Amino acid sequence: MKLNSNLKVGKNYKETSIIDVNSIKIGGKKLTIIAGPCSVESKEQINDISKNVKRSGASILRGGAFKPRTSPYSFQGLELEGLNLLKEAKKNTNLPIVSEIMSVSMIEKFIEDVDIIQVGARNMQNFDLLKELGKTKKPILLKRGFSATIEEFLNSAEYIMSGGNENIILCERGIRTFEPFTRNTLDISSIPIIKKLSHLPIIVDPSHASGISSLVEPLSLASISAGADGLIIEVHNDPKNALCDGEQSLNINEFDELVKKVKLVANAVNREV
Amino acid sequence: MKLNSNLKVGKNYKETSIIDVNSIKIGGKKLTIIAGPCSVESKEQINDISKNVKRSGASILRGGAFKPRTSPYSFQGLELEGLNLLKEAKKNTNLPIVSEIMSVSMIEKFIEDVDIIQVGARNMQNFDLLKELGKTKKPILLKRGFSATIEEFLNSAEYIMSGGNENIILCERGIRTFEPFTRNTLDISSIPIIKKLSHLPIIVDPSHASGISSLVEPLSLASISAGADGLIIEVHNDPKNALCDGEQSLNINEFDELVKKVKLVANAVNREV
Amino acid sequence: MKLNSNLKVGKNYKETSIIDVNSIKIGGKKLTIIAGPCSVESKEQINDISKNVKRSGASILRGGAFKPRTSPYSFQGLELEGLNLLKEAKKNTNLPIVSEIMSVSMIEKFIEDVDIIQVGARNMQNFDLLKELGKTKKPILLKRGFSATIEEFLNSAEYIMSGGNENIILCERGIRTFEPFTRNTLDISSIPIIKKLSHLPIIVDPSHASGISSLVEPLSLASISAGADGLIIEVHNDPKNALCDGEQSLNINEFDELVKKVKLVANAVNREV
Amino acid sequence: MKLNSNLKVGKNYKETSIIDVNSIKIGGKKLTIIAGPCSVESKEQINDISKNVKRSGASILRGGAFKPRTSPYSFQGLELEGLNLLKEAKKNTNLPIVSEIMSVSMIEKFIEDVDIIQVGARNMQNFDLLKELGKTKKPILLKRGFSATIEEFLNSAEYIMSGGNENIILCERGIRTFEPFTRNTLDISSIPIIKKLSHLPIIVDPSHASGISSLVEPLSLASISAGADGLIIEVHNDPKNALCDGEQSLNINEFDELVKKVKLVANAVNREV
Repeated sequence: MKLNSNLKVGKNYKETSIIDVNSIKIGGKKLTIIAGPCSVESKEQINDISKNVKRSGASILRGGAFKPRTSPYSFQGLELEGLNLLKEAKKNTNLPIVSEIMSVSMIEKFIEDVDIIQVGARNMQNFDLLKELGKTKKPILLKRGFSATIEEFLNSAEYIMSGGNENIILCERGIRTFEPFTRNTLDISSIPIIKKLSHLPIIVDPSHASGISSLVEPLSLASISAGADGLIIEVHNDPKNALCDGEQSLNINEFDELVKKVKLVANAVNREV
Repeated sequence: MKLNSNLKVGKNYKETSIIDVNSIKIGGKKLTIIAGPCSVESKEQINDISKNVKRSGASILRGGAFKPRTSPYSFQGLELEGLNLLKEAKKNTNLPIVSEIMSVSMIEKFIEDVDIIQVGARNMQNFDLLKELGKTKKPILLKRGFSATIEEFLNSAEYIMSGGNENIILCERGIRTFEPFTRNTLDISSIPIIKKLSHLPIIVDPSHASGISSLVEPLSLASISAGADGLIIEVHNDPKNALCDGEQSLNINEFDELVKKVKLVANAVNREV
Repeated sequence: MKLNSNLKVGKNYKETSIIDVNSIKIGGKKLTIIAGPCSVESKEQINDISKNVKRSGASILRGGAFKPRTSPYSFQGLELEGLNLLKEAKKNTNLPIVSEIMSVSMIEKFIEDVDIIQVGARNMQNFDLLKELGKTKKPILLKRGFSATIEEFLNSAEYIMSGGNENIILCERGIRTFEPFTRNTLDISSIPIIKKLSHLPIIVDPSHASGISSLVEPLSLASISAGADGLIIEVHNDPKNALCDGEQSLNINEFDELVKKVKLVANAVNREV
Repeated sequence: MKLNSNLKVGKNYKETSIIDVNSIKIGGKKLTIIAGPCSVESKEQINDISKNVKRSGASILRGGAFKPRTSPYSFQGLELEGLNLLKEAKKNTNLPIVSEIMSVSMIEKFIEDVDIIQVGARNMQNFDLLKELGKTKKPILLKRGFSATIEEFLNSAEYIMSGGNENIILCERGIRTFEPFTRNTLDISSIPIIKKLSHLPIIVDPSHASGISSLVEPLSLASISAGADGLIIEVHNDPKNALCDGEQSLNINEFDELVKKVKLVANAVNREV
């Protein structure tokens, strides 16, 4: 396996990085489970979901406030109101929150409001955004572009790292292939490869990788077996009426079942939840 | 999930198929581990490997006698001599054997000599071969073409099934994508999808999927977690000097370690080795 | 550009090959236009189409007798009757005929009945078939597999060439990509690359590449501009009621218009029809 | 062919759009040829190239000032100095200039300095940037993302259009596939498809599509034959010593030859240069 070993994200830099998010450690023996809805939709929705995913074992809450949609006419998220509702859910549950940023102009606001700033797949090579985030110290969840090679993915992390921000969590979320059954094809191999090539933690998003809720469990278990440091799962209290991505969201009970099974597999590979 | 439900390979036909190969059951709670070299190279090689993989827990021996190589000038296998050496290894170890067929004219010989006839990825849509194999009762290991959709894969199984031969074991072995790190991209999602759409057992070949021996373990564990019914693993007693695919072959010790870890993960998902 | 220069299909072997099919030269300044239906369906159909495509400028007739279909339950072609109808159309029009072979056992029959034996995309790496065709002297139309690299494609031609048969016509017919609009993605770049790497003629199948009849004209003109030695076009006298691939077939008038436009572009790049 | 017909970029909106750039019309019978170096490197370089491409027939000058590079350690362009050198070349030649923007914060500067603002493939779904550009009236050259579907591409144009800026020129520049010979695979079919689905002009970048200078000519001719409204070609006065992408750049003479051949093919399809 290649990759320029002088990269700061490369293995020679440090053996393993552990990212600290409000005392939650990402990248150690303990797996990190992030859960929440695709989009924050209302106070009731986000409070209900956050309370439930916490009880089931999630340690971080996800929720989209600004949504990158293919069409300008699709629901674009609750935007600033969404961030406010997330903050309220955090106050109620004490769960740190992660949300996706889409604009350099929002960086200050996100630093104040969220605990981890997510860079989505479509912005993985928005180098302007990466450079600006590199000047902060905020933990960044960097998703792999859906047609980025592993080498390009790590180089995008390097854009952030080279600016001085070493708090990076990578996220595999599927790549674009010819197979039409799934929304994307989860590149399960990227997990052990990235663990070899870099010192950064890597988590997996089986919800976007598959686009099908019934595949979330097998892909989650597979990811943990392959060495992933955690999962980010879409959970909704009413998937059928979700404003986006309902068909890939688990409901509250399914998520609870999932965490139980993840624990069993985690133990089998010497990890814990 | 779609797929013509009138297909014999489809779920409405039977709940689950278990394929019996010399009393070894493929598709039940117990996982099937097939192991052996890419190519049969010599009496010593195949005997040494077969004895060792059996001790580690393999229940079926694989070995290539006729090799489908991209170039006509590459090593094409020991051919008939390879089959003879496999039969001898079977006699010594009592392991059933599986080997790849490349020609309709060899069907009778293969029926006599091997226990499972493998149809390789490049022949997945060689419909002439599939139809002829459909007229036999021999167990068939059908590998997914490296750019076949799941729907095409199941339709190729249907070619065999519709001829009257229901003894089919499917094998996911990676698909061709843009990612250059791995030889192919293991489509881990195909496992639960195929378990939903069909009643046939499906095993995984992590050796060809990745082309990198260090990835065989994480991909094996991931496959079992995702619901695969078994594994087919390339094992060589001297990978560095293998006549083909040495860089993706485990050595004897690595295979032994692998089986131990597979057992732990299998138990976590309510399977056994 | 690489490619083992010792290959017989490689440039160092001969500057340019011209394949002679019943006095029609494929690979010279004059372009070859092959036309006809996806499947031979009836005496009236093939006679009507063959007469018309000849008048418009086609010099070879195509027609499927044995059809490689994804599902075993789809129309598989008229088989031997189809070959007979093709022979009759040849007698009436004096057009040489090309048809796809799917089985080694049919080689003798095809040598007698057709002028060019087509190896379809799904059999591009059916090495058994390639080797047997290499022992004949019959012109072979070898289609690129829909996920074969250019290097693999030329190596498959080498399987035929190394057996002694140098009468090979290559055919680009689109590759499988993520783009869902077209059935395949015509790899237009493969034309100049193959002209550089090898001495063999290469023609293009815009019908299968796109799967959409309205794209056949622009893709045909593009292929000729890029250096292709000819075209193979699906033409039907009644596309809406065709037994297969009607949506990608031109009708008689559309084909006539196409040939006129091809002539203009051919002249612009110093070729002729 | 589908696509939401209510999109402003869709066919029902206007029959054909012609974009006016300093009196140069893009999208009419006359083809637009844009040429220049990957990166502006020095005063001498850009002046030499601009003078020469103008003489050969280019009507717009391209030149990168801010470069989106995979690695943060690669040459990132001359940035503001690059824009100044482009403006000087424009003064000397009277050629309008196009250059790539990477940041919302640079929009005002680009509006002042360049005649067409390019959005690169990596930013095709940087919706924040698209929305901001939609508020201007500046002509935008929008490149297709290397793994964007045609539908996603047109939806990204819609982001600009829905903001009120209708001056959009689309650019096909190749998609990511499994074929390793070329940097990308030029999706030649996208040209006629986009001409059918939308009213916007579409040009082609054969330099990035192939990554190989010897392929620029055949791909250019193919693109014009398939209906493209123009070309954007990388030209360098000293390709071997170019600071980026030298292997895909034409030299001055090659570009001159190319334009002559483009004229012949353009006439054959009823267009002119």
